[in-house]
Amino acid sequence: MSSTVLYMSMSLDGFIAGPNERPDNGLGDGGERLHEWTEGLEDLAQADEGDRKVLEDFLSTGAVLAGRGTFEPAGGWGGDHHDGVPIFIFSRHQPTPEYAQWPAVTFVSDIGDAVRRAKEAAGDKNVLVHGVGTAQHCLRADLLDEIQIHLIPVLLGEGRRLFEHLGAEHIELDTTQVVRGREATHLRYRVRR
Amino acid sequence: MSSTVLYMSMSLDGFIAGPNERPDNGLGDGGERLHEWTEGLEDLAQADEGDRKVLEDFLSTGAVLAGRGTFEPAGGWGGDHHDGVPIFIFSRHQPTPEYAQWPAVTFVSDIGDAVRRAKEAAGDKNVLVHGVGTAQHCLRADLLDEIQIHLIPVLLGEGRRLFEHLGAEHIELDTTQVVRGREATHLRYRVRR
Repeated sequence: MSSTVLYMSMSLDGFIAGPNERPDNGLGDGGERLHEWTEGLEDLAQADEGDRKVLEDFLSTGAVLAGRGTFEPAGGWGGDHHDGVPIFIFSRHQPTPEYAQWPAVTFVSDIGDAVRRAKEAAGDKNVLVHGVGTAQHCLRADLLDEIQIHLIPVLLGEGRRLFEHLGAEHIELDTTQVVRGREATHLRYRVRR
Repeated sequence: MSSTVLYMSMSLDGFIAGPNERPDNGLGDGGERLHEWTEGLEDLAQADEGDRKVLEDFLSTGAVLAGRGTFEPAGGWGGDHHDGVPIFIFSRHQPTPEYAQWPAVTFVSDIGDAVRRAKEAAGDKNVLVHGVGTAQHCLRADLLDEIQIHLIPVLLGEGRRLFEHLGAEHIELDTTQVVRGREATHLRYRVRR
């Protein structure tokens, strides 16, 4: 069965972007630090075994669900995140024309609808979930099945945190996998119900 | 050589206590969730191997450095944190009489002085550092050598975060150990200089 899996690189102090995020500064000041672990991984054969395992898993997802805040600064991934899989963008607003041009990309304004359609499109593969806002919406609506954190050994100090605005109710997780990469520690959790 | 090592149980969303911390509610509402992993570990022989390794390490420290916010809600550990090792409490204020009664406990008002005296007292053992305020003071003054996080698979949602008020300068870490316990994932870092 298809799971929604949030993939995010996060600093030990919980940030997924540095301060001063803007469309032309999508990761915030210094936020690229959190993605250095992926450098040189284009050639998976050369990758550290732990990193390769996690990246292969990432690339085996059958659909992408993200928010506009992730999609637009990334240039919409040119309409193809990986392998041409369907991309669902959760957004309350209609897309601007430049982002409405790709056949694989669908804008959906309701989070439940977005998850349902992404799961359908993914078939028996998982849905890759990206972005803070989408993650928080999914968590609050109990629509997130798994969390894959690439934990980076740095304290960013300032920026945007991944887990905020979730309310005081605890969300219990089960640790399903701990994998050390060259630099990142890859932590996988299942959201308990 | 003696290292200062911060030991803290932290939720995946970065909290070390729940909301509404008070002297009579030292871990905040629901904060005891973060310490459940230590239940039943009084008998180390029965403990999960990963948890045991980390606890033995914790108990081999030769001095304790903590703040009043940790010390007082814990009843001053009755003056003995473990094995009667010297305890240094970082505090700008003089202790109230009930907390000034134990010979192993010294109040120190300067963080640099507190670290120096705790390291001296620990000899060639490490110094166990406890508490948010003390951790943040040590990090800002570049006096923390290592960080041992017991990462708990829960999103607490609200409460007190461990890493805050550190400023925008990145603090780089090296991951030195990743150990899975029964429930917690024990992550150890060395602060890079």
